[in-house]
Amino acid sequence: MKLRTVLLDLGGVFYEGARLLPGAQDALARLRASGLALRFVTNTTRQSRAALLRELERLGLAVATDELLTPASAARALLLERGLRPLLLIHPGLAPDFGGLDLHEPNAVVVGDAGEHFSYAGLNRAFRLLQAGAPLLALGRNRYFKDADGLSLDAGPFVAALEYAAGVSAELLGKPAPALFTQALRTLGCGPDQAVMIGDDVEADVNGALAAGLGGILVRTGKYRPGDEMRLAATGRLADDIGAAVDTLLDQGKEKPG
Amino acid sequence: MKLRTVLLDLGGVFYEGARLLPGAQDALARLRASGLALRFVTNTTRQSRAALLRELERLGLAVATDELLTPASAARALLLERGLRPLLLIHPGLAPDFGGLDLHEPNAVVVGDAGEHFSYAGLNRAFRLLQAGAPLLALGRNRYFKDADGLSLDAGPFVAALEYAAGVSAELLGKPAPALFTQALRTLGCGPDQAVMIGDDVEADVNGALAAGLGGILVRTGKYRPGDEMRLAATGRLADDIGAAVDTLLDQGKEKPG
Repeated sequence: MKLRTVLLDLGGVFYEGARLLPGAQDALARLRASGLALRFVTNTTRQSRAALLRELERLGLAVATDELLTPASAARALLLERGLRPLLLIHPGLAPDFGGLDLHEPNAVVVGDAGEHFSYAGLNRAFRLLQAGAPLLALGRNRYFKDADGLSLDAGPFVAALEYAAGVSAELLGKPAPALFTQALRTLGCGPDQAVMIGDDVEADVNGALAAGLGGILVRTGKYRPGDEMRLAATGRLADDIGAAVDTLLDQGKEKPG
Repeated sequence: MKLRTVLLDLGGVFYEGARLLPGAQDALARLRASGLALRFVTNTTRQSRAALLRELERLGLAVATDELLTPASAARALLLERGLRPLLLIHPGLAPDFGGLDLHEPNAVVVGDAGEHFSYAGLNRAFRLLQAGAPLLALGRNRYFKDADGLSLDAGPFVAALEYAAGVSAELLGKPAPALFTQALRTLGCGPDQAVMIGDDVEADVNGALAAGLGGILVRTGKYRPGDEMRLAATGRLADDIGAAVDTLLDQGKEKPG
């Protein structure tokens, strides 16, 4: 099957912190020139798509709004598709991504990385909606993240709390769940067997994509640590960095025209 | 083996709300007259032992301080025994039960039914202690309770959140865990095979006691609902109310002297 779409993680693949990784811009330019469809798929849960796009622009990475997919954009699409009105337990930085949605008399719960903005009252309100049958959408279920002063609780523990309280299972929208990969391909009318995901997180990016039926390439940058390849599913591939990953894809394209 | 000790649940066995159940005072008087040691074992997590004792006194039930065991008293005993300094995520009503303990530089976490007093900052502090190896003591792990305006989150979801975040398992101090039964008997030098528990909660009171090696009698008052006997472990017994349960014990005492 001919490759049509490349899904790309951002942090740890194109840049680390505020610094571009070597060869990142060149790799992106070569992907653009190849004519392959590109989608950028990231698990960010404290920054709106607009804020992230501005950051990418400052780094010299030209990405269009429609090319960027996040758990919030997947949640928004799902809410609209099902006609649901969400109660949002999210970080205020993410609020713009849910702008314009009907928030009155909510009949769904969206939980993100709300941090200090989690409260008993908010969690209790969510619990009562879940008891009444509202679906629970989780933007992520990471256990913790590295904060300025140490490790801090991420969205996962609060998702677990609500699941335990209401006896329900959350629908995960972030990687490695299939929702984000699937949504990215659906807008392009592209089958999973015509797509590949490139990322630095062996579980969230690569094994997640492989489980959803896409190809997957793990890059040895960002959060990659030696030994991660031991956890890589058998059909996954490895590349030193985004430049090498693009080499692999474009060489393959030449050798095996569809 | 001769019966030496009777453990008794309070709410739903002796009273409901602010009202004594029929025969409750008489049953207590007959137990007192029998010479059996008595311990009152309740899962209350928002009321100090002192407050509960005052309530019992108002109801006309004479219970001595040493006879009353709660998850908080079990936690306190365990903290002192292991020389631990707790971070307390509990309801303020319960604070007196932890009075006098060293709370500086905590190296243990106690989670109760803190309700509105749960905060992200407090949970995060607890998480960091757990990451550093502090044990997690749970006063309860109920999912929810009946609040004035609907069901509300109990301690369980927050225990689940911390367990998920830190990858640990909490030590449960409330019924049906063995800690409370065991502590009650240890102070009396009484073996579990010389003791029986009477309660209205088939899981927390009766099956919990049976699992800890005690006898158990389920009364058909309080939270008992028809069909609960289907979940009663095979060695458990049934009685219509506390009066009938005491009849069973005292008759048995006569028939089978030790």
